[in-house]
Order: sequence, then C-alpha cells, then structure tokens
Amino acid sequence: MRQFSLADIECLGLGATALGAGGGGETWVAELAVRDAIEHHGPVTVVEAGDLAPDDLVLPLGLIGTPTASSEKLPGGVEFSHAIDALTGYLNRTPAAVMALEIGGLNALFPLAVAARLGLPVVDADTMGRAFPRLEMTVLTLAGVPATPLSIADEKGNVVVLEALDHETTERVARAVVTEFGLIAAICCYPLRADQVVAHALLGSISGCLDLGRQLMAHARGEAGALETLLARTGGRRLFVGKVLDIERRSIDGTSRGSIVLEHLDLPDRTLRIEMQTELLLALEDGEVLAATPDLIVALDHEAGLPVTVEELAFGQRLDVLSLPCPPRWRTPDATALVGPAAFGYDIAATAVGRAG
Amino acid sequence: MRQFSLADIECLGLGATALGAGGGGETWVAELAVRDAIEHHGPVTVVEAGDLAPDDLVLPLGLIGTPTASSEKLPGGVEFSHAIDALTGYLNRTPAAVMALEIGGLNALFPLAVAARLGLPVVDADTMGRAFPRLEMTVLTLAGVPATPLSIADEKGNVVVLEALDHETTERVARAVVTEFGLIAAICCYPLRADQVVAHALLGSISGCLDLGRQLMAHARGEAGALETLLARTGGRRLFVGKVLDIERRSIDGTSRGSIVLEHLDLPDRTLRIEMQTELLLALEDGEVLAATPDLIVALDHEAGLPVTVEELAFGQRLDVLSLPCPPRWRTPDATALVGPAAFGYDIAATAVGRAG
Repeated sequence: MRQFSLADIECLGLGATALGAGGGGETWVAELAVRDAIEHHGPVTVVEAGDLAPDDLVLPLGLIGTPTASSEKLPGGVEFSHAIDALTGYLNRTPAAVMALEIGGLNALFPLAVAARLGLPVVDADTMGRAFPRLEMTVLTLAGVPATPLSIADEKGNVVVLEALDHETTERVARAVVTEFGLIAAICCYPLRADQVVAHALLGSISGCLDLGRQLMAHARGEAGALETLLARTGGRRLFVGKVLDIERRSIDGTSRGSIVLEHLDLPDRTLRIEMQTELLLALEDGEVLAATPDLIVALDHEAGLPVTVEELAFGQRLDVLSLPCPPRWRTPDATALVGPAAFGYDIAATAVGRAG
Repeated sequence: MRQFSLADIECLGLGATALGAGGGGETWVAELAVRDAIEHHGPVTVVEAGDLAPDDLVLPLGLIGTPTASSEKLPGGVEFSHAIDALTGYLNRTPAAVMALEIGGLNALFPLAVAARLGLPVVDADTMGRAFPRLEMTVLTLAGVPATPLSIADEKGNVVVLEALDHETTERVARAVVTEFGLIAAICCYPLRADQVVAHALLGSISGCLDLGRQLMAHARGEAGALETLLARTGGRRLFVGKVLDIERRSIDGTSRGSIVLEHLDLPDRTLRIEMQTELLLALEDGEVLAATPDLIVALDHEAGLPVTVEELAFGQRLDVLSLPCPPRWRTPDATALVGPAAFGYDIAATAVGRAG
C-alpha cells in the first residue's frame, strides 16, 4: 500500500505511453484528469489485490472508443461515475477498489482519477500488461473470466449495461453503443472479486509502469546508460536505430492498418519494417521477425528519448526501436491465439526471433 | 379481472392486426406463442391497472426490430424472460404485472404469452392504442414518463440495460443493439408504477382489441351488417372500396416508404392514394386528406373481410379502406407533433377532413 501523488503523474504517463506500444491514446488528457482529481480530492492509495478481502468487488475500467476522439472530447471523469453506478446497481454490490483495464496508454491513468474522485483505492494490477484494441484481449479471458456484465457510459449520463454470452457479441454490441455515444465512452467491465485479481490478473502493473517511466525520464534527460539500464531491468532489447523512410496508412474493414520502413542510421543497407494497427505489432528485417505481439514494440524518438505513438510517427523521424518482453502469462498457446500476430491478421509464427540492432 | 383463454387468441390476433394499421408484424407467430404458453401454464388473468397496488411495478414489453425478421426467427418467449430479469435486476424490484407496449400487431399478443409463462397478470392497457414504429411514440412520452431504464434481450441470453437522457439516444442505441442481436429482440421499457398506468396509459386496450376482433370475425364470416356495427361501435368510417392499381415501395434512410393507389370498384374515376411506411399513414383522394396518423387506416380484403398488412398488399387486391379514430389522448397538439403526419415526414395538417367513400 502506497500513496500515488501529483509527483508520480508524469512518470506514470511516460511509462504508460511506452507500454501502449504506439497505441492506447495520448496520455496527456488522462494526466490532466488525474492531476485535477488529486488536487481536488487528495492522493490515491494504491493497494495490492491481496490486501483486500477475497470477496471484495474490484472494477476494471477505462475509456473505449476511437483514441483520437479523446483529445477532441475531453473525458471529465463523470462518465466513469455513471458507468460504475450502473454496473454496481446491476450487480447490487458496492465496489471496494478500481483497477486499470490496460496499463498501456491513457487507460493506465484514468483509474487513478476515478479513485481520487470516489475515494476508492486502485489495485496495482491490470488485465493486458500493455494496450490492446479489443475487450477480450485480456489475461482474464485466458482464465475464463467473462468481460460482462459490463457498463458503458457517456459524460451526459447515458448508460448501458451489457451481459453477453460470448466475446464476439460483447465486442460488437459495445462498439455499436460507443458509436452511438459519440465514439468515446467510459467502460467498466470484468467485475472481479479480489481473489480473482490475485489469481488471474497481471499484478504490479502500476509499480512497473512507474518504474519504466522513471527510467525513460532519466534517458530523456540524457543520463548516460539509462536506456541500457532500462533494457537490462525489463529484459528488453534495442532492435534498431533508424530514420523513417516511408509511412503507409490504410483502413481495412474499419481497422486502421499501416506499416513504416526505417533505414538504419549507421548501416544504410539495413531496413526495418514495422507493421502497425492501433499498436506497433510486428518488427521485421529482411523478412525475419525481430519482435511480434504480444511482446511490446516501442519506438523512442532518437533525440528526445520519449516514446512515440502511432499517430505521431512522421517521415524523417529518427527512432530507437525497442522490444520489451510481454508478461509471461502471454506466452502460452492460448494466449498466442488470443493476442498473437494471427489474432491481428498476420500469417506468421508468433515466436520472435531475436537479433540485436 | 377476467381470464384470457385459448378461445380468445384468434379474436385478439384479428383485432390486433386491424389496430396495426398495416404494421406491427404478422400476428400468427405471436398467436402460436400465446397458445403454447397457455397450454403449458394455464390461462392468463387480465387485470385493470386500478386493481393493483399503486406502487406495483408494471412492465410494458414487446418485440423490437424488423417485423419481417419475426417470421424467420421465431421468438420463443425466453427472450422476454431475459429482458424482464435484466430490468428487474437493475431496478432491484419484482414485477407485479406485464403490459402491452403496443396493442397493434404481434406485440398485442406477446405479453399474454409472457404472463402465462411467468404466472403474472396482464394489465388491460397499452401505450400506443395501435402500432407505431418508434419507441417514443407513446402516450407516456406526452406525460413525461421516460422509456428508460429499458432492457433488450435476445433468445440466447444476451441482454442490454439502457438508461438514456433523451428519446433520440434511446432510439439510436436501442436500434443499434437490436441490429447486433440479429434484427429482432425482446424489449421491456417504460417501467411504470400501477398508478402511473392509471394516470397516463391507454386503458382497456385488450378488451377493446378483443371486441374489435370479434366484430371483424363476424364480418369475415359474412354476417350482414357486421362491418356497419363495427364502424358504429368504434366511430369509424369506410373511406373507400377499391382495387389496387399501383404499389410503390422504396427505402429512404433505412425507412421503408411507399404508396398504393386504389381505383374505386363502382366509380372508376375515383382513386384513393395511401401513403405508408411500416404502417398505413395517410389516405388521400384528389389531394384531400381523408384520414391521417394517428387515426388508424385499416385495409380489409373486400372478399375475405380480413385486415391486410403492408407486406400483404398486392396488385389487383380489392380492399375496403376504413378509418378508425385514434384514442382521444392523441388529439392534442403535443400528440400531433409526436405521431402526426409531420413526425413521419409528411408536410400536411394532421386533421383528417372526412368524406365518406
């Protein structure tokens, strides 16, 4: 149990941007929301799931919708209150804590704003260990824990509670509702007992994200060896250092897909291709897969040292491309089927074959 | 308080088809469902809302979706149980009775099947006095009673509870959910206290529908003067007797629209044009409006004497076109705005100018 205070926000945002692997939305909106909530309601208590009573209700939550909509229509926090009220009303239970649905991108931060506002603790855990674009792409799915009943709410107070029998229906109905709610909404899903969090969720997500953020900050400040320390502590690798030669973006069946090609800064005959959707998903050199989802591919601006999102990628940018290992729970065959390259439509083996850049 | 038994089903179906004003779906599916439910669970008690305790929870319900989908995907009744369970769970209340959302078309009958199955009474009332295509087109809207919280369920057990702040959001989200649920679903909406039913709903709907059905049956059996008795008892008029010369159907913004032209059987220089969407909405002769929504335009097969739905209209058919007056609650300016011709996109005054056919 520890306090999360104003001083932690920037580090968490930085770590969360990296864990977004290019996706998960820009964190600045969420950083503002956490700052505002803590300034008005005081710091947030971060607890271990094991510190709660086993039967306590823990509510994972986040924003759902089009990532770019979040910077045009600023979420104020009240949509999360509506979502929590609707789901706890439906369950006829009182929540003991909230939790991040995903620790990548802005959804790493919103639970802290909600916790401050509602006077609830945040559990140091999440369900993805990164950002993923679909609701069922969680370690809870591997454990057979359903995403529903879930609630979706907008800032005006329109709410939906959904109970669905399968992931496909859940995803389709949730997306249809979010579209009608203006492309972005709060979601509260996978209601869990604290003992289920302990047994099935990814633990230590906030601490880990903060730690990663601190190392990135040191790197961005130019501390010698900071990136090497980061890689050593996370088990990550630097795949490539290069300049963006080409960016291709297209929309297929409502999913944005694209790829970028980097030319190596020192060895111009070497090129790296990254396949991306809402996240960076595959890194290939000469047809060889250097890294692949669920492992994280993280692009850092070579000069500024800061993580770059898919939206921010630009021609001529110089990038350090890192691969950070996913949580071990994502290494099983059922996990590969759920979040490996094939789940995103790529026809390659999920195993990343390492090669230092 | 009276019993609704197997012998009443056919009459209710016939009356409901007429009150559908060409819409509301074919009743045979619902007649089968009521028959099956009564055979397995016994007759249904029909009660006056005033016989219930004022605070008793009454749940209006019906099918929502594409009328034609209901004959391809037969509703079995279990979707209504799912919808009721979800809404009562959300409200944390036990229902005292169910009620018809609309007394036109198949939705006049399903509440009886649900009542038999669940051992609940049916309140002798509805919210439209006929069939209408949109959820907000009820007398409850005139009274400021919201349609939500509402629940929507499919036969598999997928359920949504929706709480929305305005009719437009309610309609958009409900339609989006129904689409994802396979185009047809059970809806349970406008949860009411019994005293609200007394104050705001249309009372005597089932009795009135049964009475209309009995008169139609007598007419269909060739009893002399039966149609005249029906018109005298309902305050209706025979607008026209003619043969279908032309049928035009088109789809505009997802709404089916069309018109039919009838040539008078005895006076071939006279023609009647009926504008229709899911219901028959306007009847015009020489540009003069003979009848208009919310009044009911009912087409009876001239030989068989039975009401004809919009889907059944065919070239060469001989029809008696009747106009039956809507409930008086639909005659106020706010009602005209909600369910008059302008609400369906027709730019004419709502007042029907009478002229006997």
